[in-house]
Amino acid sequence: QIFEAVVAQTGAAAPADLAGLHAVVTAGPTREPLDPVRFLTNRSSGKQGYAVAEALAARGARVTLISGPTQLATPRGVTRIDVESAEQMLGLSLAAAAEAQIFVGAAAVADYRASEVAGEKIKKTGESLTLVLSKNPDILATVRAAQPGLFMVGFAAETEKLAEHARGKLSNKKLNLIAANWVGNGKAFDTEDNALQLYWPEGEQEIPAASKAEVARQLVDRIVSLYQAR
Amino acid sequence: QIFEAVVAQTGAAAPADLAGLHAVVTAGPTREPLDPVRFLTNRSSGKQGYAVAEALAARGARVTLISGPTQLATPRGVTRIDVESAEQMLGLSLAAAAEAQIFVGAAAVADYRASEVAGEKIKKTGESLTLVLSKNPDILATVRAAQPGLFMVGFAAETEKLAEHARGKLSNKKLNLIAANWVGNGKAFDTEDNALQLYWPEGEQEIPAASKAEVARQLVDRIVSLYQAR
Repeated sequence: QIFEAVVAQTGAAAPADLAGLHAVVTAGPTREPLDPVRFLTNRSSGKQGYAVAEALAARGARVTLISGPTQLATPRGVTRIDVESAEQMLGLSLAAAAEAQIFVGAAAVADYRASEVAGEKIKKTGESLTLVLSKNPDILATVRAAQPGLFMVGFAAETEKLAEHARGKLSNKKLNLIAANWVGNGKAFDTEDNALQLYWPEGEQEIPAASKAEVARQLVDRIVSLYQAR
Repeated sequence: QIFEAVVAQTGAAAPADLAGLHAVVTAGPTREPLDPVRFLTNRSSGKQGYAVAEALAARGARVTLISGPTQLATPRGVTRIDVESAEQMLGLSLAAAAEAQIFVGAAAVADYRASEVAGEKIKKTGESLTLVLSKNPDILATVRAAQPGLFMVGFAAETEKLAEHARGKLSNKKLNLIAANWVGNGKAFDTEDNALQLYWPEGEQEIPAASKAEVARQLVDRIVSLYQAR
């Protein structure tokens, strides 16, 4: 039993049931520049996405991690590609997804970017400033349109109506699985622990609060069982 | 000569000519929330401000560092207070400045904040989103108005017309010294090296490209000589 606990913690003896498969994981925030120094972003640390990449690699998958700016080390056995903006992340996601079987969109992609990016630093002149933002491309929906057969997992970070918003995204984006969590007020973003509520077309599962590494292992267990049951 | 070089590098034998003085340094970016997860910020790493705090402490000053979010360790001998927004930084700066002799505003304070901060995560609905921003309080100008006798040093990060913009800020904010640098395109922000152009009412000085620690030592040399000549 002690041996099993150690194995569960290190993941050393995880079954290599994803061997031969290529998984793509997006993680971290994106940065949407307003000018050469200012940008819009969000509180994502990237920790949960990096933990998912590591857990997929531990199960034998070849893993490509497409990462926004984070302070994290690249997990063992994972190939990492760094990006800044949502548009950059979309381009690399489309390219990587074309030769992948599993895609996990864990990045907290900025929903909007500045409609015009100033070439010089915006001077502080008026008492108020109106910023016009344009909707960013939806990475999951765009990848799904290009790859109808890909097994796709999304994340939904919500501050209200968790189940309703998550089930809506699962269906609108034609995902195979969605992992929802509460954010804001010190929850999930930039913290060590996390808790997830998983939804898929035929079921749901609660992953109770635990380290992001442990949460990632349980999420990957569910990914493996749904992927194998297709 | 070798001994002198080592001493200059470690700062171990720097003269304690600021002993008995209290210096306040602001550093890092500020974060201006749009909702519980999104915020506006900038590319400041805080490294130059932290290096200035450390160099002031090495000269014997008691140093309070008021810091926006950074990934940096607190310099030896420095008391650090963490803040997020410009408004929080202003409140703590005013309080600390009331009992200080030297104030160095090295933070890259966000010029604007959202006029209204949403209590829940803004849903991605329209194709475009208009954000109305309000000018943030000017920390240096507000501290100067409250403390006319304080020795005040500002920073000016510019992408064009460096001397003109820096001299304008020196005079408008009634500073004793301003340190200007070029930013954008990989310069100064989030880098290891820096170069500064110093301006004060009666003179100017170039600090050529060097490590931020070395640049901080030369800046503090100038602060000490101008402070003592008052």
